[in-house]
Amino acid sequence: MEDRLGLVKSTIKGYFDDLNNPIFDTFRDSFSFGKMLRSKLIFAIAPDSTLSVRLCAIVELIHFASLLHDDVIDNSLVRRGKASINAKYGNKNAIMLGDILYSKAFYEISCMDSRLSQIISNCVLKLSLGELEDVSLGESFNLDSAKYLQMIEHKTAALIEASAECAGILKGEKGDKYRIYGNSLGIAFQIIDDLLDITQDEKILGKAAFSDFKEGKTTLPYIYLYQKMQENEREQLLSYFKQDLDSKDKDWIKAKMDKYNIIEQVKEVVSNYGNKALNVLDYEDSNLALIMKDMLDREF
Amino acid sequence: MEDRLGLVKSTIKGYFDDLNNPIFDTFRDSFSFGKMLRSKLIFAIAPDSTLSVRLCAIVELIHFASLLHDDVIDNSLVRRGKASINAKYGNKNAIMLGDILYSKAFYEISCMDSRLSQIISNCVLKLSLGELEDVSLGESFNLDSAKYLQMIEHKTAALIEASAECAGILKGEKGDKYRIYGNSLGIAFQIIDDLLDITQDEKILGKAAFSDFKEGKTTLPYIYLYQKMQENEREQLLSYFKQDLDSKDKDWIKAKMDKYNIIEQVKEVVSNYGNKALNVLDYEDSNLALIMKDMLDREF
Repeated sequence: MEDRLGLVKSTIKGYFDDLNNPIFDTFRDSFSFGKMLRSKLIFAIAPDSTLSVRLCAIVELIHFASLLHDDVIDNSLVRRGKASINAKYGNKNAIMLGDILYSKAFYEISCMDSRLSQIISNCVLKLSLGELEDVSLGESFNLDSAKYLQMIEHKTAALIEASAECAGILKGEKGDKYRIYGNSLGIAFQIIDDLLDITQDEKILGKAAFSDFKEGKTTLPYIYLYQKMQENEREQLLSYFKQDLDSKDKDWIKAKMDKYNIIEQVKEVVSNYGNKALNVLDYEDSNLALIMKDMLDREF
Repeated sequence: MEDRLGLVKSTIKGYFDDLNNPIFDTFRDSFSFGKMLRSKLIFAIAPDSTLSVRLCAIVELIHFASLLHDDVIDNSLVRRGKASINAKYGNKNAIMLGDILYSKAFYEISCMDSRLSQIISNCVLKLSLGELEDVSLGESFNLDSAKYLQMIEHKTAALIEASAECAGILKGEKGDKYRIYGNSLGIAFQIIDDLLDITQDEKILGKAAFSDFKEGKTTLPYIYLYQKMQENEREQLLSYFKQDLDSKDKDWIKAKMDKYNIIEQVKEVVSNYGNKALNVLDYEDSNLALIMKDMLDREF
């Protein structure tokens, strides 16, 4: 796998070389690859296709472009434990670099099978709408878990779903079942991310813990917690919304999550999505089960 | 022509309906169509293709998305005589709406002939690189007209060129000659725009005149002016760079432009590009000559 991920990285570097632009080149070393989960997923589904590396490079490029714009919109100054591009070079550069990476990715996918091109561009559309939904939900304390799930389906699951579907097509199959697998996997992945923001140590996360609630993101644990709380507890929880929390406040929230078994409740939701994802595959695919385990049993 | 432009507008409205997103819908009435020059160009080249309307709608969507991001990057608060989207709804919404329109356009073009999809996505890549070049050139007083021309070739000409080339393909011809026509037309178009910033009245422009120099854009007239000036005049011109100019300062610049015949010199460059564009067509095409006239003999 490491060799293949290396090929994806060198393909992306080749795309940067193609741009042949000295101004762009001053930024390119600031781009850091993440865990490349989407590439791992593509390789797990279509290990034998000669086109998998290209698909991975395009998907990673789109993922990276979306993070560039995301960090501007959320005003996030840290990404993967380092200063974000907007923190380092300002919002304007982050916007322009995102546009460049998006359009390079669209160009590269437009040179492949038009089914892939349609799936990928449609997923970026969902992703962009998801961003708008995310910001809109963040304007107030959101109590509607269905709205929350739809938002993460757009914002996070869409690209994982599209990666899986395209990989299924590269494998020579209809992409449908992989799309459904990717959709559930993507939703589960985001809910795990939201849980980690509450349960995990800042050092391991590579960003401040409890940042979601401060940023106005009422993730599933907060929605469930509010539903179970008594009136006076609700008031206190609401008073923390979008505030800088000290360790005493964080401990209070953690204690309430414990009291009402929220983490377990949310983990059960994750597990349901995980099972749904695996059940859709009509055979035991140990690679895809492993990917699922990788994505869900993670620390950051 | 008006009927056809109406069809383009209703196709775009149909694209907005497709999004089926209530949050997006709160913004859609703020989008105003411009002069639709690119659509006029496409209809002039491929009047008989049933696909021209779709191509026009996609190109206008891309143009509009690029303006949304442009206005954030340039901090422009006025567009087409009205408050820009970023002025009205903030930078973050403008970024997200731009991403949505771009990706919808990419999705729609990916459902057409893959040649069109490749040309359009490659042109958006150029356009995004052009934006980066524009900002970079704006960091200091740029004296290199070649760098300036390359930037406008990317930032402005690329989409006009791509529109013409795609229209040529819809007409059933090779797109090459239309691409070359569109390239020259696009460069000439931008230079006219730069001239109007100096020569035209604010009311007609729909934005403040002399805004380019204030924003750090050393357009062709300023480059030529600097080249011809004496040392003490150069110093004065440089002292105006990126400054708020009062009417006395503006009059001084205008007087120097007159003294050195800069406007005529720049108009000759425009005229050369215009002739180059028309010469590349191996027959008299009165529609394309008219488009050229429309684009170049304009007041705003």
